[in-house]
Amino acid sequence: MNNEIINNSILLLSRLPGLGSRSARRMVFELMKKKEEVLIPLIEALSNLEKNVVTCTECNNLDVTNPCSICASEKRDKSLLCIVEDMSSLWAIEKSGGYNGTYFVLGGNLSAQRGYSPESIKIPQLLKKIVTNSIKELILATSPTVEGQITANYIGDLFKDNNVSISQLAQGIPIGGELEYLDEITLKTAINSRKII
Amino acid sequence: MNNEIINNSILLLSRLPGLGSRSARRMVFELMKKKEEVLIPLIEALSNLEKNVVTCTECNNLDVTNPCSICASEKRDKSLLCIVEDMSSLWAIEKSGGYNGTYFVLGGNLSAQRGYSPESIKIPQLLKKIVTNSIKELILATSPTVEGQITANYIGDLFKDNNVSISQLAQGIPIGGELEYLDEITLKTAINSRKII
Repeated sequence: MNNEIINNSILLLSRLPGLGSRSARRMVFELMKKKEEVLIPLIEALSNLEKNVVTCTECNNLDVTNPCSICASEKRDKSLLCIVEDMSSLWAIEKSGGYNGTYFVLGGNLSAQRGYSPESIKIPQLLKKIVTNSIKELILATSPTVEGQITANYIGDLFKDNNVSISQLAQGIPIGGELEYLDEITLKTAINSRKII
Repeated sequence: MNNEIINNSILLLSRLPGLGSRSARRMVFELMKKKEEVLIPLIEALSNLEKNVVTCTECNNLDVTNPCSICASEKRDKSLLCIVEDMSSLWAIEKSGGYNGTYFVLGGNLSAQRGYSPESIKIPQLLKKIVTNSIKELILATSPTVEGQITANYIGDLFKDNNVSISQLAQGIPIGGELEYLDEITLKTAINSRKII
């Protein structure tokens, strides 16, 4: 089986989160089986993604416009800024329907182990955003993991002497879990009962 | 989040085996994060797959040539035909290095529940192949699941009065498992100690 083309697809897919080489291989075989229904539309969808989806320079959200639809919306409360670690958390909160402010996507958490410094999670960009916009409340919505809490504490400390309220998602977040796997009602409750710290 | 482009990619990926909508979403975010390293090469790899990989009309294997490299190889024993349910099984056996014959990929198992008839698992094509080629031995290598065994028994019954030996992968196959997850040594042993039935 000197099949470089098949192996190359398997290799690239296996670099994605949650996929090993066996599951990537199954995916490729399934794609070949469903050429018309899945493979061809998928190539088109991913090409569209590559060509049209951009990172919002305001909040690091992904969208087809820059600034993104959330930052550009007049219905959003710009004085509220919710800080999340990744896009999955942003989508989870949006889906809960319990939030009407704006976001800032860090792109990760502080981690000595993984070498994530304040610069790599875009703290300078966040600082600038908070200074230039009139943010009244920061909601720290990193995941309730050790690294997420360290990141939340770090950001909370940075702004504790400023004229800005700092809150955290409250009751209902199970310790050790990840935001994107929470049910919508728990998330909604947690947003509504956030506590000033 | 009126983002049809992102949602479309998520939807298509979630149709693949082992991926739900949450894991597909994570994949899409990861792809956007790694645009240069993964997304662009992946689009190219999948396009190559779509353009160049074809199904072998002899055995239903996937390859860049038709007949595939296994069917076309002069080093392969054409009198030996190993019947597998899918490509994953074929790759698992090839990887074990314990087999030097040819294959026939059914593309599934007989299943009343899923509506898989002898026609949909290509039994007519198999019959024709066995008649026109001088096959001496059929190795029934469907998975040791209920459906796999039913399929093996069905094919075994079809040819029991013909002038062809019929064997099955023997010791070492754990009941209820799937071929592609077996270790290579177990698979090799099972091929070498196949029993005439």
